[in-house]
Amino acid sequence: MATDTRDRILETTAGLLQHRGFHGTSLNEILAESGAPRGSLYYYFPGGKEQLALEATARAIEEITRILEELMSDGSDPAGAVRSYVEAAAAQLRESGFTFGCPVAPIVLDLGPEAGALAQVCRDAFADWQRTLREGFVRAGIAERRAASLAVTVVSAIEGALLLARAARSTEPLQAIAGELGTLIDGALAR
Amino acid sequence: MATDTRDRILETTAGLLQHRGFHGTSLNEILAESGAPRGSLYYYFPGGKEQLALEATARAIEEITRILEELMSDGSDPAGAVRSYVEAAAAQLRESGFTFGCPVAPIVLDLGPEAGALAQVCRDAFADWQRTLREGFVRAGIAERRAASLAVTVVSAIEGALLLARAARSTEPLQAIAGELGTLIDGALAR
Repeated sequence: MATDTRDRILETTAGLLQHRGFHGTSLNEILAESGAPRGSLYYYFPGGKEQLALEATARAIEEITRILEELMSDGSDPAGAVRSYVEAAAAQLRESGFTFGCPVAPIVLDLGPEAGALAQVCRDAFADWQRTLREGFVRAGIAERRAASLAVTVVSAIEGALLLARAARSTEPLQAIAGELGTLIDGALAR
Repeated sequence: MATDTRDRILETTAGLLQHRGFHGTSLNEILAESGAPRGSLYYYFPGGKEQLALEATARAIEEITRILEELMSDGSDPAGAVRSYVEAAAAQLRESGFTFGCPVAPIVLDLGPEAGALAQVCRDAFADWQRTLREGFVRAGIAERRAASLAVTVVSAIEGALLLARAARSTEPLQAIAGELGTLIDGALAR
């Protein structure tokens, strides 16, 4: 029950951050939407909005990292793994009414260079996702240097396509990049 | 002089939107940073923050569209044109201390589906940039369907790499995607 409340507060926070960004999300809205008593919010998250945003974002990032690692683990078909990831992201975006994209993007764009722990979590997430992809590409036989630049391109294209898809309220941009990224990765493998 | 004040207000608005998103930008900050008298702000922008954000974003979008159109106009080297665009974006990001990326991205992520004119301007911008690229690719000899999916991928990768670059405070992600996008476009031309 206690954990339920904590979880519900974090889920509500994650949703609001995706809908409205860091500055657009208020503690009052988190309370109203989660239905949690004010006391429990301060009990679980004495650090307030910063702590809530940090924990909600870290949790969403972990889930993405876990899925990426699983998909890239065997290294037999990295293009297929990337396509599967993009399909899953497209499904999540569609099911959320085109509001749930990447948990990191709205934080990065809302926070200036002065931001501390939250900005660090976002930097680490982008770095972790790139490393997971790069290692998968290397296991599949792509040279380290090319694998690194492919990894940057895959993360970038997915981040950007999530933005385009959200603006257009359509998953077509994600389908388009899935095809092109597949071509790029298969081309690197054929060398 | 009058136009100077109007311009200064719009430039300040554009900067704040990039730094802190739509919800994080307030009229008071726009006044303080631009040094414009409150009266002139309401005189030029009776629609308040919505109108300011709309005009500042539309102006930044037009500038990008103009540069893209110029680069893609001759169609002899679309990969080179994309690389030049990415280099210009990287220079702007670096010169702004890693705060000035795409004017559209923070608006898209901050506004829900309920947003009206401002959301439409952002949708149109993504569509215009894709059309400009697609037409350039077609002029260079790439089939219409492939040109469309390449255009989505180029816009997506640039948007995403601007995010990664901002988070990492480094232009390396932009350099990486410039190379990969060049490979992809040249591969499509070679068919």
